[in-house]
Amino acid sequence: MKMRSSAAVLNRTVLTMPIPNYQSRIANAQALMRSHGMEALLVFSAENLRYLTGYTGEAAYGVLASHTLHLITDYRFVEQANADCLHCTVICRDREKTTLAEVIGEVLGNAAVSRVAVESEHLSLDLFTKIQHHFQPITLVPINGIVEGLRACKDEWEVAQIRRAAQIADQALEALVAQIRLGVSERDLAMELAYLMRAKGADDLAFPIIIGFGENSAKPHCVPGYRALKEGDFVLIDFGAMINGYRSDMTRTFVAGEPTEQQLSMMGTVLRAQEAAIASTRAGVSGQQIDREARRIIDRSPFAHYAGKGLGHGVGLKLHEHPFLGQRCEDTLHTGFVVTIEPGIYIPGVGGVRYEDDVLVGEAGASCLTHAPKFFQISV
Amino acid sequence: MKMRSSAAVLNRTVLTMPIPNYQSRIANAQALMRSHGMEALLVFSAENLRYLTGYTGEAAYGVLASHTLHLITDYRFVEQANADCLHCTVICRDREKTTLAEVIGEVLGNAAVSRVAVESEHLSLDLFTKIQHHFQPITLVPINGIVEGLRACKDEWEVAQIRRAAQIADQALEALVAQIRLGVSERDLAMELAYLMRAKGADDLAFPIIIGFGENSAKPHCVPGYRALKEGDFVLIDFGAMINGYRSDMTRTFVAGEPTEQQLSMMGTVLRAQEAAIASTRAGVSGQQIDREARRIIDRSPFAHYAGKGLGHGVGLKLHEHPFLGQRCEDTLHTGFVVTIEPGIYIPGVGGVRYEDDVLVGEAGASCLTHAPKFFQISV
Repeated sequence: MKMRSSAAVLNRTVLTMPIPNYQSRIANAQALMRSHGMEALLVFSAENLRYLTGYTGEAAYGVLASHTLHLITDYRFVEQANADCLHCTVICRDREKTTLAEVIGEVLGNAAVSRVAVESEHLSLDLFTKIQHHFQPITLVPINGIVEGLRACKDEWEVAQIRRAAQIADQALEALVAQIRLGVSERDLAMELAYLMRAKGADDLAFPIIIGFGENSAKPHCVPGYRALKEGDFVLIDFGAMINGYRSDMTRTFVAGEPTEQQLSMMGTVLRAQEAAIASTRAGVSGQQIDREARRIIDRSPFAHYAGKGLGHGVGLKLHEHPFLGQRCEDTLHTGFVVTIEPGIYIPGVGGVRYEDDVLVGEAGASCLTHAPKFFQISV
Repeated sequence: MKMRSSAAVLNRTVLTMPIPNYQSRIANAQALMRSHGMEALLVFSAENLRYLTGYTGEAAYGVLASHTLHLITDYRFVEQANADCLHCTVICRDREKTTLAEVIGEVLGNAAVSRVAVESEHLSLDLFTKIQHHFQPITLVPINGIVEGLRACKDEWEVAQIRRAAQIADQALEALVAQIRLGVSERDLAMELAYLMRAKGADDLAFPIIIGFGENSAKPHCVPGYRALKEGDFVLIDFGAMINGYRSDMTRTFVAGEPTEQQLSMMGTVLRAQEAAIASTRAGVSGQQIDREARRIIDRSPFAHYAGKGLGHGVGLKLHEHPFLGQRCEDTLHTGFVVTIEPGIYIPGVGGVRYEDDVLVGEAGASCLTHAPKFFQISV
């Protein structure tokens, strides 16, 4: 084999970690459902379904009732569902003979319920109309955030997955930096970083890699292109790995060659802002309060006019999930939340600096899950 | 640089191809909209929006009226939208001050319309409720398939993108096969194939690569795992590249070492079925008729009981799009459709064989866009 070897063995150590407690997750969701006055909840979000059941396939829907959880899929994924889901009943629907509404109706009929919540953020108008039509006189009540609320607080197993994903990203970045030379394109660098994460055991990328050189680093959502690296460029890399569905999300910014005084000043300002934000992060504070700590430092700098908009977001089965940290975020953080802290300065046409880490919220403070150095020396 | 070089130069030849005619696409959608008795269409599908405008960013919505098309996005993507969209008006919404419903309302108010269609398959119940609430007394009418119907028929530029994606996939497979040795895992092979497609100029993968060895090849949606290649295994590879948003989709099955009589018989049966299906494909026939040609051959074989369910699907900006070819598909193919033809035989616990090619439908017949050989020699 000419291929580079993968880190399969490393990845397998995950199996020695605590296992997810699906029964307790399901019980918690049922309790929340009842507290909303509902007898059942139709689950349409793939992440919510995975959280409740462990299901890793596609094209599935959940019916949560007071004492049961049914997962409905079809022949393509039923084998996967039976292997993944130990604490719910798997139903294989023949799509040519039965509509989804009919199957849901049967499950709900057996559960004899009348007040049914639907995840209206994740359900198309089309599917809603079909289900509602089939269900008369049961009224479907749009309620969002029941499972999302539970998901915000990560259990030990979930933290271990994000920690492992973050570790792989750290290692991949270290290997990548050793290879960076002037003339390389953003695109080639992104391609190599993707390969390195997979080779080190990532199941997938957490999201498409963002890499911006020079003036491109000022674009918040830069797609890696054919721009070649020149001496003096900022190199902004925003990326993450995925393990068992859980994502890491990290950004580093450095300079090809010797940084100028302005570049060092931008980097120092963002780093100070990030450190202040992380130092203020603990259970009981709001996203607004944490944002204020970071913003205060950037506002007093020469770059006040170029501060980024938000400060961070929850990360887990989705890349961006509850809570969202920023000037208007009144949500309070709780122990077990995992959030990104990512202040930035973006000067259009010149360049941008962002540092982003994933932190685990605790009673007394926050601990970083991402560990890559903040300064890298790129020899030119 | 230790990195392997990318095929940037090859990819750039795309620029010499015909360019997409967005004005004509928009005019066609407006005509269809009017034929449904509608004065405006709210576009929520990302692919439909890209088709009409060329927009490559995220988080955008379209408002099509009789003589205008507005694209609504926010600060993160407005630069991208202005660069991409030459034939529509870009609106940058401040998400902290204005709701999407308000902006849509303003655009529609200026256009003085009352009958407004919404893509109800692509609109969440949540967003629908907010927009409808804001719009009283305008009634939103759920109508699907207006833009999808146009998208089924590919123009010259679109065919060139799929052809280029298919060519990259062909080249990547050839390079991959030369590297396959006993003991490699499905996962490592998938990782290498992903790298090869990107290195040969793919913007991205068309979808997560499916690779199944031996008994795993019988699973229709096999996720590449740690199964190592053994002598005598089937190797099923289902993959594609993406160019400018357009996807290719191809499957090849071969054997590690010398095929057994049963393996050759399975492969021969599927190949004959595929050839018969392709030979019957031309403008004016239905998906049902083409499926019948393939099914007839498998039904007469010893593997009749193990035939796959569908036969193929349209491919373009989405991997699976209109039309769907199979036993219940009465849709007629037209000139310019690009569809996959992918019969298969799947014996649970033993192995599966699938051959899949992308074909362009013409008046007199169909021409293949994928060209990789059907038989590969894997030396063991």
